[in-house]
Amino acid sequence: MRKGDETRTAILERAAGLASQVGLEGVTIGRLADELELSKSGLFAHFRSKEALQVQTLRFAAEAFVDRVVRPALKAPRGEPRLRALFEGWLAWARADLTKSGCLFVAAATELDDRPGPARDELVRQQRDWLETIATVARTAIGEGHFKDDVDVEQFAHDLNGVMLAYHHARRLLRDAQADTRARRAFVALVGAARPS
Amino acid sequence: MRKGDETRTAILERAAGLASQVGLEGVTIGRLADELELSKSGLFAHFRSKEALQVQTLRFAAEAFVDRVVRPALKAPRGEPRLRALFEGWLAWARADLTKSGCLFVAAATELDDRPGPARDELVRQQRDWLETIATVARTAIGEGHFKDDVDVEQFAHDLNGVMLAYHHARRLLRDAQADTRARRAFVALVGAARPS
Repeated sequence: MRKGDETRTAILERAAGLASQVGLEGVTIGRLADELELSKSGLFAHFRSKEALQVQTLRFAAEAFVDRVVRPALKAPRGEPRLRALFEGWLAWARADLTKSGCLFVAAATELDDRPGPARDELVRQQRDWLETIATVARTAIGEGHFKDDVDVEQFAHDLNGVMLAYHHARRLLRDAQADTRARRAFVALVGAARPS
Repeated sequence: MRKGDETRTAILERAAGLASQVGLEGVTIGRLADELELSKSGLFAHFRSKEALQVQTLRFAAEAFVDRVVRPALKAPRGEPRLRALFEGWLAWARADLTKSGCLFVAAATELDDRPGPARDELVRQQRDWLETIATVARTAIGEGHFKDDVDVEQFAHDLNGVMLAYHHARRLLRDAQADTRARRAFVALVGAARPS
């Protein structure tokens, strides 16, 4: 890795941490420069604008998510095992992702929903990709005969997203000791309903 | 209503709108004074501090939520009809609540989860009350024989919360035209799984 790339990675790691803690709006070139003891002009040379920095932060986090959650899950056998790997990978990500403050994407979803602009557009693209990934893996479960032929995989992806959002809410806000158990039970019920009777 | 109360209500309505749009951290005495063309000292006399203003904003929104969602639902017959009324009331609230920018509580949940303080404490109390309300209504469904005796009503409340969070995500962030349909299907599946077979 070249020196410039290393610096860029260090900056984006800190930016992702900040975003999850105080929101993407709190990720400014000035604040990052202070925290990393870098010059504002140097940071400006890397990112040009606050908006570009926010978009780059989201992309950096999405790449980490693919590396840590999606790619390992795709190595599991097709169908239910792969779906379970995806779900467990997401739980682990939300518990201790690169930000230590919960899932950056969950926080950004409500922060950006009323803020039109490039960061919102980027997040919407990413979230659609994620829901499509879940739907695609659910489709392999139909192919393997683990799920009924008529399971609506988009609905399944939407519902599994709800299980994840409820987990985040229970764990991060309510500090509910049962959050993991509840999330796994919800997953088992969702998968159970999709199986051939 | 006395003049002072009217002013207070007008301030808190605007504060709740702002909170849902830009987050509770964006609700400051200075910004509200500007938007409402009131003096900062007058606003300060009402609320004393930013923290007190945030807590009052959450309480004001929670009272509106009880008036518009909880109280009307409790007039529906016990059991499944009451549960459905609660769910439909919540959907209507999230579509066009007092803030016009989605559900204030959903936005505050991820904003405040890493910010210890009185606003977070207030929100946690409110969200626990809300989950308990759902669980209590689910218990009436067991009492009426609509649900199986062994349904875990806390798990049911947790899962229904996930259905609502997924709705908010689909509608507010993704602008998914199917959001209402998906939420209702998820509700039907959840209730269906709780019924005696």
